[in-house]
Amino acid sequence: MVSRLLPELQPSHLRESTLRSEDVYRGHFLHARRDVVRLPNGAEATREYIVHPGAVMVIALLDDGQVVLERQYRYPLHRAMIEFPAGKLDPGESVFACAQRELLEETGYTAREWARAGVLHPVISYATEAIEIWFARGLSLGARQLDAEEFLDVITATPAELLAACCDGTVTDAKTLTGTLWLQNMLAGHWSLVWKDTAVWAAER
Amino acid sequence: MVSRLLPELQPSHLRESTLRSEDVYRGHFLHARRDVVRLPNGAEATREYIVHPGAVMVIALLDDGQVVLERQYRYPLHRAMIEFPAGKLDPGESVFACAQRELLEETGYTAREWARAGVLHPVISYATEAIEIWFARGLSLGARQLDAEEFLDVITATPAELLAACCDGTVTDAKTLTGTLWLQNMLAGHWSLVWKDTAVWAAER
Repeated sequence: MVSRLLPELQPSHLRESTLRSEDVYRGHFLHARRDVVRLPNGAEATREYIVHPGAVMVIALLDDGQVVLERQYRYPLHRAMIEFPAGKLDPGESVFACAQRELLEETGYTAREWARAGVLHPVISYATEAIEIWFARGLSLGARQLDAEEFLDVITATPAELLAACCDGTVTDAKTLTGTLWLQNMLAGHWSLVWKDTAVWAAER
Repeated sequence: MVSRLLPELQPSHLRESTLRSEDVYRGHFLHARRDVVRLPNGAEATREYIVHPGAVMVIALLDDGQVVLERQYRYPLHRAMIEFPAGKLDPGESVFACAQRELLEETGYTAREWARAGVLHPVISYATEAIEIWFARGLSLGARQLDAEEFLDVITATPAELLAACCDGTVTDAKTLTGTLWLQNMLAGHWSLVWKDTAVWAAER
């Protein structure tokens, strides 16, 4: 369905076209580029942005109705944050393989069924990053497989606790707030998901 | 209220402390730093991140029940996106002054009453950015005051249209999805706001 909010054909009166593009920083983690673009009025402007490989977030539903969350120190904010499990795609990795890997490595859970909900763009003004939103259920708990330099707590919450934490400012991570929008509308029956067995998703790669 | 999800005292077993910090890129828009940190296990690691001045997003409620949205080309994604009005704080500017300024400049609206809802962090892994979430009502339409290099369409939608657009993938901007979580729960009476007149907020600066 094409919403009246966003025409299928992207409007040409807003479009910016690339004139030149160059790397300006390549670090261990961050990769920044600077492009010169042609604006709709014909003028030139500069656009700087982070190039990101993409990521996936998992909303894992426990059989008792709780969801799986993580508490992790986020250095740019100098504090621990509450968030849904998520991680970047490895080179050549499928989104579904990444979802399974991140959930297992960070929390120890494997899932019997998965559903792809949608996508979110965390920072449309200065990064290419897209995060696919997946749901998982039929969870079995095994051992976590954290990297040597990864430190995080796995916690669980009821949807009501999570919503209260979003309202009172305990949860401020945008991807987790977006996941909570999905969770709330899915549980209310407003937004539907198509669940498939793990093996089916793996074969669809 | 302190949620059980996030202890008031940030957990020391997750904390990272700064050992060294340096600028690695200063562009027209992006400012990147690279820090060396001490991990909880005593090892050292590198953290790269974007330094951001902070921003504000406005959920403006029209008297007919619709909300004010923008359609704007977002170069890193090479497409137009639907989003709530938002913008970065100017140096020395208060958050409330920024909210008023961005709403007026980009959409032409001024508001009689405002409420501060909360804050979101768009990208906790690699930016310091925080976006305050404000609601505005009692709107009057005047002339937009776009910068010479700013191009965007102002559109309106009912909350039901916005929610449908979040579900079907028309809206994928994380701040706007987070704003929709606030809008939905506020309209349902689950999350409450404290409204104050514009002059009261301005005096509280």
